[in-house]
Amino acid sequence: MTALANHTSGFATAYGVDPLSRSIEQQFNDLFEKEVAVFLVSTGTAANSLALATYAKPGGAVFCHEDAHINVDECHAPEFFTAGNKLIGIGGEHGKLTPDALRTAMNKVPDNNPMHGRPAAVSISQVTEFGTIYQLDEIQALADVAHSRNVPLHMDGARFANALVSLDVSPAEMTWKAGVDVLSFGGTKNGCWCAEAVVFFNPEESEGFEYLRKRAAQVFSKARFISAQFEGYLKDDDWLASARHANAMCMRLADGMRDIEGVRLPIEPQANELFPVFTKAQAARLEAAGAKFYDIPADFVSEDEVFLRLVTCFATTPEMVDEFLTHLRG
Amino acid sequence: MTALANHTSGFATAYGVDPLSRSIEQQFNDLFEKEVAVFLVSTGTAANSLALATYAKPGGAVFCHEDAHINVDECHAPEFFTAGNKLIGIGGEHGKLTPDALRTAMNKVPDNNPMHGRPAAVSISQVTEFGTIYQLDEIQALADVAHSRNVPLHMDGARFANALVSLDVSPAEMTWKAGVDVLSFGGTKNGCWCAEAVVFFNPEESEGFEYLRKRAAQVFSKARFISAQFEGYLKDDDWLASARHANAMCMRLADGMRDIEGVRLPIEPQANELFPVFTKAQAARLEAAGAKFYDIPADFVSEDEVFLRLVTCFATTPEMVDEFLTHLRG
Amino acid sequence: MTALANHTSGFATAYGVDPLSRSIEQQFNDLFEKEVAVFLVSTGTAANSLALATYAKPGGAVFCHEDAHINVDECHAPEFFTAGNKLIGIGGEHGKLTPDALRTAMNKVPDNNPMHGRPAAVSISQVTEFGTIYQLDEIQALADVAHSRNVPLHMDGARFANALVSLDVSPAEMTWKAGVDVLSFGGTKNGCWCAEAVVFFNPEESEGFEYLRKRAAQVFSKARFISAQFEGYLKDDDWLASARHANAMCMRLADGMRDIEGVRLPIEPQANELFPVFTKAQAARLEAAGAKFYDIPADFVSEDEVFLRLVTCFATTPEMVDEFLTHLRG
Amino acid sequence: MTALANHTSGFATAYGVDPLSRSIEQQFNDLFEKEVAVFLVSTGTAANSLALATYAKPGGAVFCHEDAHINVDECHAPEFFTAGNKLIGIGGEHGKLTPDALRTAMNKVPDNNPMHGRPAAVSISQVTEFGTIYQLDEIQALADVAHSRNVPLHMDGARFANALVSLDVSPAEMTWKAGVDVLSFGGTKNGCWCAEAVVFFNPEESEGFEYLRKRAAQVFSKARFISAQFEGYLKDDDWLASARHANAMCMRLADGMRDIEGVRLPIEPQANELFPVFTKAQAARLEAAGAKFYDIPADFVSEDEVFLRLVTCFATTPEMVDEFLTHLRG
Repeated sequence: MTALANHTSGFATAYGVDPLSRSIEQQFNDLFEKEVAVFLVSTGTAANSLALATYAKPGGAVFCHEDAHINVDECHAPEFFTAGNKLIGIGGEHGKLTPDALRTAMNKVPDNNPMHGRPAAVSISQVTEFGTIYQLDEIQALADVAHSRNVPLHMDGARFANALVSLDVSPAEMTWKAGVDVLSFGGTKNGCWCAEAVVFFNPEESEGFEYLRKRAAQVFSKARFISAQFEGYLKDDDWLASARHANAMCMRLADGMRDIEGVRLPIEPQANELFPVFTKAQAARLEAAGAKFYDIPADFVSEDEVFLRLVTCFATTPEMVDEFLTHLRG
Repeated sequence: MTALANHTSGFATAYGVDPLSRSIEQQFNDLFEKEVAVFLVSTGTAANSLALATYAKPGGAVFCHEDAHINVDECHAPEFFTAGNKLIGIGGEHGKLTPDALRTAMNKVPDNNPMHGRPAAVSISQVTEFGTIYQLDEIQALADVAHSRNVPLHMDGARFANALVSLDVSPAEMTWKAGVDVLSFGGTKNGCWCAEAVVFFNPEESEGFEYLRKRAAQVFSKARFISAQFEGYLKDDDWLASARHANAMCMRLADGMRDIEGVRLPIEPQANELFPVFTKAQAARLEAAGAKFYDIPADFVSEDEVFLRLVTCFATTPEMVDEFLTHLRG
Repeated sequence: MTALANHTSGFATAYGVDPLSRSIEQQFNDLFEKEVAVFLVSTGTAANSLALATYAKPGGAVFCHEDAHINVDECHAPEFFTAGNKLIGIGGEHGKLTPDALRTAMNKVPDNNPMHGRPAAVSISQVTEFGTIYQLDEIQALADVAHSRNVPLHMDGARFANALVSLDVSPAEMTWKAGVDVLSFGGTKNGCWCAEAVVFFNPEESEGFEYLRKRAAQVFSKARFISAQFEGYLKDDDWLASARHANAMCMRLADGMRDIEGVRLPIEPQANELFPVFTKAQAARLEAAGAKFYDIPADFVSEDEVFLRLVTCFATTPEMVDEFLTHLRG
Repeated sequence: MTALANHTSGFATAYGVDPLSRSIEQQFNDLFEKEVAVFLVSTGTAANSLALATYAKPGGAVFCHEDAHINVDECHAPEFFTAGNKLIGIGGEHGKLTPDALRTAMNKVPDNNPMHGRPAAVSISQVTEFGTIYQLDEIQALADVAHSRNVPLHMDGARFANALVSLDVSPAEMTWKAGVDVLSFGGTKNGCWCAEAVVFFNPEESEGFEYLRKRAAQVFSKARFISAQFEGYLKDDDWLASARHANAMCMRLADGMRDIEGVRLPIEPQANELFPVFTKAQAARLEAAGAKFYDIPADFVSEDEVFLRLVTCFATTPEMVDEFLTHLRG
């Protein structure tokens, strides 16, 4: 009987909220100690773009770090989904925005001057693109600047779990209690196949998001393929254990490098990403052993050096780390 | 070593084409007896919208049936992804376009008159939204009209497999050999979790599609979660067996209804969708037994009748069909 | 001193509201007996598209007559400026929507079903594209349907003056007193070079319109070139006199045709547009005399006939009309 | 007879190319010593946005100076009309891009990596936003960088005439002979009411521009109101005389300031814009005398100074300049 499922032109039963989806909503409410509005999507780019599209306006500008994923790694999807809002990239050491730099940039888009457009949102990445982490008071200070111009603070939490265990705070503390209005909550980089969520801490602001998501081709007839991943991901704090492990492996890797001649760590790691400088000889040795990486252009490396990005994950073992270090030592 | 995967700002190893994805390309080439360009996405709406966006133009118009999924069931995603191309819905019995009706509609958008815009594409659904099927020569005739105005013919193949086994033709015969230029190839409605593909039969026309897809937030860091579904789906012709079964269950359902008083079948089924008219008493009896459905507004039913849509699938058993018929008989 | 005008990056003095612009605002307030928000733009397409963009939503649909200028004559600008809202064309005799037809069309876009999108606005043309006019109670009835779905009623008033003098009512009566929320007020078709305005009757709904207009490239550094036209246009009721004259010439033309054999008037003229059926011989005679026209496809004309559109304007003289009729008589 | 102009749904005679428009085309061909494709629009923002939209692509990026008018003064219209292409602002002294800085920025958007998007165009302003001018070889060098990545060089010529007379070269030399592919040709800042044009030096690249322009609401039923302005503007080299005069007044102003204590000229003027540093006392004195200006934020001024922008025009007289200098001297 069930298999003869009836669908009108609305496909109501196929696309409707199934009980699994509902339990996910409760899981997020519990996780954040607050009633939130949560929407599942399939990619981090979708989560970021639709979160920002929710607050987009004609002539709107989104302020973010110049190296933010939304600014340089998403093929301009945020610009597209916001119907042409501008992303204004701001400099800042080690991937982090400062309140002063943010305020200065926002002042160039003053109120009541249509030529320059108007602010629509501020976005930060936690963990940042250089593996660093905002402290709670740093988040609050950026939120204060955003709110002083009446726009929300968005957090790109592609590595949310890694930041959380690094700071050892609660999800509520790292988000709405610190002024975050909307979060891209990432599961994919911490073990899921494809599980991302947009979380609104002021649920009424999500009005109409269902339409935004459907129009973005992010509504799945078999939505439980995403919700089931989240259910497993969040259960029994497995997600935090995964992140804790990935971070620990990153620290083991960093610590193992500190005494190796020729290696420099210009950015102290705080989560599961490491940005070392190797000599070209070291890099060549690792590549000969099977590692693949590309260098990041940087003006602080010499001609004989390369600047790289290494990422550890839930599946990285101490043995892998040690093997890597062995090759690095040569 | 592998787990310490290195990603530069390009995330090359995470997002790159893995060997599994490559084997998918070969599977599609074999399937269509032609070198095609194939791109995996996660929803049918994404497949349709991006296929059409490939051919979109300022002022472009997409001609389709007025009941087409792209016209009424996708929250205007095609309009959005084409940056505002217009979908022009055309009437036609039982969900099918005729060459005459198509030609007449296209003539209202003549060449060299910017006020009216210009044609960008023609789109048909195979299976149609009313469970009917275009014969090969009907497809070719519509393709001829489209090509006479220098635009491609797109086929929404959400139920591609069901059409294929119903016509008992090859994938090549039902597509490029009949004039189809680009296909939304659907796996989700025939058993996959989430597996859709855009197939270009003139691969050079897909130039730039990688950017369109990435900008649409449809590129997955773990792309093999889609490609693996397709690999399994297409292997050993399982997909055709599933479709054949679903179609057979639909015919069993239809045949079982023919002698039941009060039931009418205004549209003869050709695939796995059935559109019967029941009396309200029959519908109520089925609902009491647990079935859920909504009626489709129709001017050919009386006040005591309802017009419904029933769908069978790979998981439908003869016992389910018979149980349904038992309840229907009362 | 003034000529050495100083402009910062804001170009404040060049783009600012000059005294002339302010006096225009007062003129519109007086005209409509209400405080309105008025914005000058340079084309009717801009006025319509930006009025609709103000109310656009993701997945939004604009309901209008299938022959509406916004639906078929603006190169899909409304779809573009609304970031892909769909225009849903509805049939209706002589260019007019009926409340029933509107309600039926809107019911196909029910609340709370993202697949089908959601209503964003209803738009009517006054004068319609076939030269007919909505009576005040007809406008109110359509407004009631729109408002019952919580969307505004837009009026495309490209020929606002011609409708006004035909109905012999006040601007207030034909707009906000009859339920109109936003108006495209056209001056170009009644004598201006290039002067169109968007008028919001609930000024708070125009919040952000300045950004929409600037982003649409419709803000002029020398804005007084438009405002000056309006000032002249509205002064001393010249605009109504122009419209009255154009309408009168249209009636003279229609009346002169009534006794000419072979001529039919399937649509009774109400403003300054006439849609006669001529014999092909009559049309040929007129063309030989220098007239240029194209026929409108119509299923109610015979093979020997053509269906045409004629427009009279402020500059049309009785002598011109009579000369035309002379040629028509042959 | 003419006044009874017949318009079909195509409005052919109202919107068609009138003889005046055609003569404009010839004027532009003559001006540039080449067959060009020219399209009239009503604002500089429209010219820039539509020129860039012609070359826009999904994921496309437009490279320009960080202070470019398109980047900071057009309410993000370029992002909107290109359906979300990103503008990438590049630093450079006195408003000018260098080939090295351009190449470095473009290298961050490598070929074949969809995450980062892809180049769509390079845009320069001639005169720049700081009143400076690119020499012919500088233009060519930037064109070479753009062309090496297979994208066009766009020139925002809002002050085209001022640059031309300053360099004392021909329109052809300053554009296509130096590698410029598309030009926004501005008349408004040099005396017209509202007259801007997009000029394509490779006419075949303008294919479809008519649709882009109409969809942008930039097609005028009475197009001759723009073309007539251009006809007058270009006749008898009046436009060059106007620009020459404006530039001369700017030099007179600059020269008059050089011996005034407290005044600095950090940027040497080359056209009709001057960017002096005044003491706050001087600025106050000028304001008391009726001048209005806002300061531009700058890090090279002391607390007692302001950095300003002054513009001279065709209507500026030597007496005005001298009066201004008198007030400045105090």
